[in-house]
Amino acid sequence: MIVSVIGSEEAGADSLRLAEEVGRALGRRGITVACGGGGGIMEAACRGARSSGGHTIGILPGHNAGETPPNAWVEFPIFTGLGAARNSIVVLAADAVIAIDGAYGTLSEIAFALIHKKPIVGIHTWEFSYAEHEADHILRAEDAPDAVEMVVQLVEALPPAGR
Amino acid sequence: MIVSVIGSEEAGADSLRLAEEVGRALGRRGITVACGGGGGIMEAACRGARSSGGHTIGILPGHNAGETPPNAWVEFPIFTGLGAARNSIVVLAADAVIAIDGAYGTLSEIAFALIHKKPIVGIHTWEFSYAEHEADHILRAEDAPDAVEMVVQLVEALPPAGR
Amino acid sequence: MIVSVIGSEEAGADSLRLAEEVGRALGRRGITVACGGGGGIMEAACRGARSSGGHTIGILPGHNAGETPPNAWVEFPIFTGLGAARNSIVVLAADAVIAIDGAYGTLSEIAFALIHKKPIVGIHTWEFSYAEHEADHILRAEDAPDAVEMVVQLVEALPPAGR
Amino acid sequence: MIVSVIGSEEAGADSLRLAEEVGRALGRRGITVACGGGGGIMEAACRGARSSGGHTIGILPGHNAGETPPNAWVEFPIFTGLGAARNSIVVLAADAVIAIDGAYGTLSEIAFALIHKKPIVGIHTWEFSYAEHEADHILRAEDAPDAVEMVVQLVEALPPAGR
Repeated sequence: MIVSVIGSEEAGADSLRLAEEVGRALGRRGITVACGGGGGIMEAACRGARSSGGHTIGILPGHNAGETPPNAWVEFPIFTGLGAARNSIVVLAADAVIAIDGAYGTLSEIAFALIHKKPIVGIHTWEFSYAEHEADHILRAEDAPDAVEMVVQLVEALPPAGR
Repeated sequence: MIVSVIGSEEAGADSLRLAEEVGRALGRRGITVACGGGGGIMEAACRGARSSGGHTIGILPGHNAGETPPNAWVEFPIFTGLGAARNSIVVLAADAVIAIDGAYGTLSEIAFALIHKKPIVGIHTWEFSYAEHEADHILRAEDAPDAVEMVVQLVEALPPAGR
Repeated sequence: MIVSVIGSEEAGADSLRLAEEVGRALGRRGITVACGGGGGIMEAACRGARSSGGHTIGILPGHNAGETPPNAWVEFPIFTGLGAARNSIVVLAADAVIAIDGAYGTLSEIAFALIHKKPIVGIHTWEFSYAEHEADHILRAEDAPDAVEMVVQLVEALPPAGR
Repeated sequence: MIVSVIGSEEAGADSLRLAEEVGRALGRRGITVACGGGGGIMEAACRGARSSGGHTIGILPGHNAGETPPNAWVEFPIFTGLGAARNSIVVLAADAVIAIDGAYGTLSEIAFALIHKKPIVGIHTWEFSYAEHEADHILRAEDAPDAVEMVVQLVEALPPAGR
């Protein structure tokens, strides 16, 4: 199972702690952590995952490490050369998504998760609504263990081919 | 000048009227309308633009018209084969964006506009917020002439290379 | 009908003349010329097309004109932000492709045309072969009128949905 | 280090043996094998890599396993939803590329390797030339150990940021 942890390069200490805890809990369960490969939330999630023996994949916007260096805890850097359009792949590469904190890139990834009906759980992240058509359809977790438990249950409930 | 009109395939009569009026006002000013090439808001905006002599570009998700037929008012269909990842191009292809109504695809396009600092004006569309980092940074218009006037002024205020 | 003219930024005088002549012949028939939006063959084809009243679309690798300025004869610049991965779109956006001269980008576009079974005609361009599986399946033209006549006939022979 | 092994879904027994041997040799050296995630050459390379303890990454064209199932030896499937445009990522994700056999997709990947100046070694694969500008600039190996030795030396000669 692969879970993408999405969130911004610049995040407060509480959000970083949360991301690291999420990464650690995912790694402990043998779940691979994917992310955008950068700093902040992404780095914290990767560090957590590696600390508990999990694998980490970074899906990076640039063509190579010179353009967009992966954080130090990315085990498998996937350079895409697509810029922010790679946000779509960060979502599709995963069986489920956990959003923590976040700037506009995170908002685009939340939208892609909803477009592709990918299970997504948010902790302290974007709220959004549009009255006529759509409510805020992402699930909300209170803390890291809660978020990890929720995504695992959501993925296990999926039909195999949908993963 | 190219302005992308973004919004969903399924929209109410009021939103469709608004989109057509926006398209017509853009066409009247000699501004090309770009969009995702599909139905609903996209089709209404294209129809409006063509009715006032404007050009229209549809940036489509499929590989060809068999996969994703462009609406009847798309003059230049650009098939991308990228699926929803083409939403990023719908934004980048334009000097500015007008969002009307909208589902999750529209939310992703709003996010890309904010990522790329592309001028964007919304009418009856998504609201979103995340307290710690970001407010709702898109401008809001009340009606079609207002939206068109706003994007024109925003684009004219840009440095040439930023377009 | 849209025909993409592919070829490199740096080309000799003979190839440039050929590209301009191809563009002019396409424009005269009311066919829109698409290309990668840059200099060399792309610029010559666009200049030719505009000189005979044709429309021109440039599908550019950068995010904006500051990153990758379109040539002066591009009427509709489509910035993709995808880098060389936009070569796939240069092919998919067209009903058929004419390859003139060319560097590695052109080779990738020829390959995409073959992948997507897009009609393609080459004049003085790449030759390629792999004995066990594939011969050189692109058609070869001798001059500009010949190339344009060939792509028109190929497109007219396609089923509508394949365009 | 990540090395992408490129080649077609349908390949003869000799090519498949070669791909498996390449994968095994890469895995034995602790090099991760990336590929397009499909059958044929890709599957053989992944099987070889896993048999010697190597990791394997499949960069797939579809949105999920229902659309494009990864071969059984892909450890980390990265679904892109980009169709054949993902060929660009298969190249960029790797420090170097080994081409074996191949159809048009492989030709596009060879072209992307040349565009991005990515070290590439071919065994029984496409030949291509264009007299005025470009020769066939990929290196040619005679057998699997030779190919693996060549890519390792090429990558070790790169400046770190170019990887």
